[in-house]
Amino acid sequence: MTAERIYLDNAATSRPKPPEVLEAMIDYSRHLGTPGRGAYAEASQTRNLLTRCRERLNAFIDGDDPNHIIFTLNTTDAMNLAIWGTLTHRLDHAAASSPIEVVTSELDHNSALRPFNALAERFPGRVVQKRARFNADTGRIDLDHLSSLISPATALVAVIHASNVTGVLQDAAHIARIIRARSDNRALFLLDAAQSLGHVPISVRDADVDLLAMPGHKGLLGPTGTGVLYIRPGVERLMLTVRQGGTGFRSELEQMPDFLPDRFEPGSHNAVGIAGLSEGIAYLQRAGMPAVVRHEAELTNMLLDGLSALAPLGVRVLSPAARALNPVDSASVGRVGVVSFTHDTIPAATLGDLLERDHNILSRAGLHCAPAAHTTLGTRETPGALGAARLSVGPFNTPSDIRAAIAAVTTICEQAAAGPDASHHVQPRDRTPRTHAPAH
Amino acid sequence: MTAERIYLDNAATSRPKPPEVLEAMIDYSRHLGTPGRGAYAEASQTRNLLTRCRERLNAFIDGDDPNHIIFTLNTTDAMNLAIWGTLTHRLDHAAASSPIEVVTSELDHNSALRPFNALAERFPGRVVQKRARFNADTGRIDLDHLSSLISPATALVAVIHASNVTGVLQDAAHIARIIRARSDNRALFLLDAAQSLGHVPISVRDADVDLLAMPGHKGLLGPTGTGVLYIRPGVERLMLTVRQGGTGFRSELEQMPDFLPDRFEPGSHNAVGIAGLSEGIAYLQRAGMPAVVRHEAELTNMLLDGLSALAPLGVRVLSPAARALNPVDSASVGRVGVVSFTHDTIPAATLGDLLERDHNILSRAGLHCAPAAHTTLGTRETPGALGAARLSVGPFNTPSDIRAAIAAVTTICEQAAAGPDASHHVQPRDRTPRTHAPAH
Repeated sequence: MTAERIYLDNAATSRPKPPEVLEAMIDYSRHLGTPGRGAYAEASQTRNLLTRCRERLNAFIDGDDPNHIIFTLNTTDAMNLAIWGTLTHRLDHAAASSPIEVVTSELDHNSALRPFNALAERFPGRVVQKRARFNADTGRIDLDHLSSLISPATALVAVIHASNVTGVLQDAAHIARIIRARSDNRALFLLDAAQSLGHVPISVRDADVDLLAMPGHKGLLGPTGTGVLYIRPGVERLMLTVRQGGTGFRSELEQMPDFLPDRFEPGSHNAVGIAGLSEGIAYLQRAGMPAVVRHEAELTNMLLDGLSALAPLGVRVLSPAARALNPVDSASVGRVGVVSFTHDTIPAATLGDLLERDHNILSRAGLHCAPAAHTTLGTRETPGALGAARLSVGPFNTPSDIRAAIAAVTTICEQAAAGPDASHHVQPRDRTPRTHAPAH
Repeated sequence: MTAERIYLDNAATSRPKPPEVLEAMIDYSRHLGTPGRGAYAEASQTRNLLTRCRERLNAFIDGDDPNHIIFTLNTTDAMNLAIWGTLTHRLDHAAASSPIEVVTSELDHNSALRPFNALAERFPGRVVQKRARFNADTGRIDLDHLSSLISPATALVAVIHASNVTGVLQDAAHIARIIRARSDNRALFLLDAAQSLGHVPISVRDADVDLLAMPGHKGLLGPTGTGVLYIRPGVERLMLTVRQGGTGFRSELEQMPDFLPDRFEPGSHNAVGIAGLSEGIAYLQRAGMPAVVRHEAELTNMLLDGLSALAPLGVRVLSPAARALNPVDSASVGRVGVVSFTHDTIPAATLGDLLERDHNILSRAGLHCAPAAHTTLGTRETPGALGAARLSVGPFNTPSDIRAAIAAVTTICEQAAAGPDASHHVQPRDRTPRTHAPAH
């Protein structure tokens, strides 16, 4: 008998999706199948489908205008549009002698760190990067430090709303107030909602966010190949385009049109993916965010408590002081259902391998594309491996999944304590760069 | 009884897809559902699926290395990676006093024209654009003119392989020879295969192409949300990245890794789309390109002959001198199954509307995102509308579809000749910028 596989890698992508998501993709494929340009009925229905998705998502994030919902390939694509779009514009308008400053945090993901590094390399001496510290125990950004880094020279502040390593949420509205005050309203605020959207309510108006980068395929429960950038009305005038091409309208112009969403959406849309995404959002709307928060907070705190109790066996939870809150509103902080941990002697990759091999539990081990976070957490280089093991919950996980995960980690630790023979350590797999091995 | 709808807008996206494409997407969604990072079996199977697709496509285009198949959102995204990637690198290495030159043709799509314009705007005085003329009757680029535009100052030559307005193919290998000779091997050759790939065989080696931009969802029969850039080995060293982020491997680096495909593929892949794309390519491999070419050439020439015969009724076919060739090899020219036409008195948009309303035929009217082509063709502003009507065939169209289309155009022309009462002209729809109206 094959045991059921327990998926606890929802931070990578949500799995499963609500059945309506795949059904919408099948329905689109069978009955529409057009990219949404053209005058005939099927093309117009595809356009309506894209519009409906924009409207749903705009309502879901309390946005100002559905046309400011820009579809991208993934969150990284959205982050790059936000970062390159705003900073190239700012560079064009800044004196060459006064560098522009960008601020992020040590918690941020390579989707912020790497574009900032590339910009600094591309414009030598013109871009200065600063990173706010965070507290390893609480997982919270040091807001005094953040505040000290921001000035009227700051062009953009990019902050990850919930860390994909610790799951800890930052207080976006508080950060926005700091940014506005310290920068004389000159800095833009980019919030990376890769791990928070669909897990906690987000109001871009309450949080006073200029740019919200979103995954379609994580908390929103849509398919892969969907990302979104929300651009607050007015901010588009402070952005250059990052790619250009056909937009299905005003083809006579040799520049990108100036209206949204077209200005930032050249080329054929991922219509089949957006058809699915729209149903993922509709599912969350029907379920209601309070119910989603309640469910995920319960599982998250179970996981947190269960793993924390294994400290005598050598388990260390990252940022253990933060707990999931229920109820949560957009001003609250706390944590989403991402819980990472290390073991005194078992390498992170081995933890992940044993969880799968012996317990059918799917997790993720490594640096999680957030190297600076692991430096502060002291987990950048743990014994025998980089990073930590990570378990991440989604709306379809159950308390029994969490009990199984805790029992599995317990067993693994006990076997390790009993000695190498009993531990059944698996050998780290042979990894070469080309195979996208798991040290992500 | 509802008549069957006849889809002749395959230049926008192929429709239908082979059943295996949707089946693979369903199978992926039900059994894998991961983005392909992580160490567990399902993630590793997703990675294998991406690798298999790269291998298939690399073989299909006679490429040198499957790792040089870079997945993008759409062809436009691939064109932008090619254009911004190579030209920002070249600008970094060129003296500020000597502008770099980019060459394209009047036939090219906004996915080349608009990035070039944006670059010229972004780097004032440092980027000079040149466009080769083409012959309106044959649809062929004037190669003497093209040759005269290329010099050692040329950084990039971008040419659309088959025009999405006329369907006419250019001789890529011949163009490559001109580029190599005239630029002293300094210019790179970007071929836009949006309308040719999957319709005629392409060998990047025979055609001596440096960068091939491809749609996944047109001739390759995959789903929307898939585009590809092939980068000839070595050319990646002449490119900067255009977006940066997590790559699932070497997360400790704060720059993009230097190996492909990772260097140019940050963020989660559209795994569900690539699962479908892989099956689209496999379908073409099973069918065999000679059979696809034979079938589409037959339909194309039927359409061409049928529409050309309507000249006495006021129909004018664009670039009528070019015919589809069978057999075709990658060195041949001719045309793919894209046939555009105008009428002396009926606006293009009305032609499209009548084809749908009275004949259930789905076509596309307008500028087709190629404004310069329509200028040369004399169809930029036709009576009452911009551009031309376009019919485009795919592998699943039948001779009976083509007969129906010709009969429909005949009827529309006859009704117009009989006078306004008999013509049942539909009113052009009310169009506002926000609705992506069909003047694409």
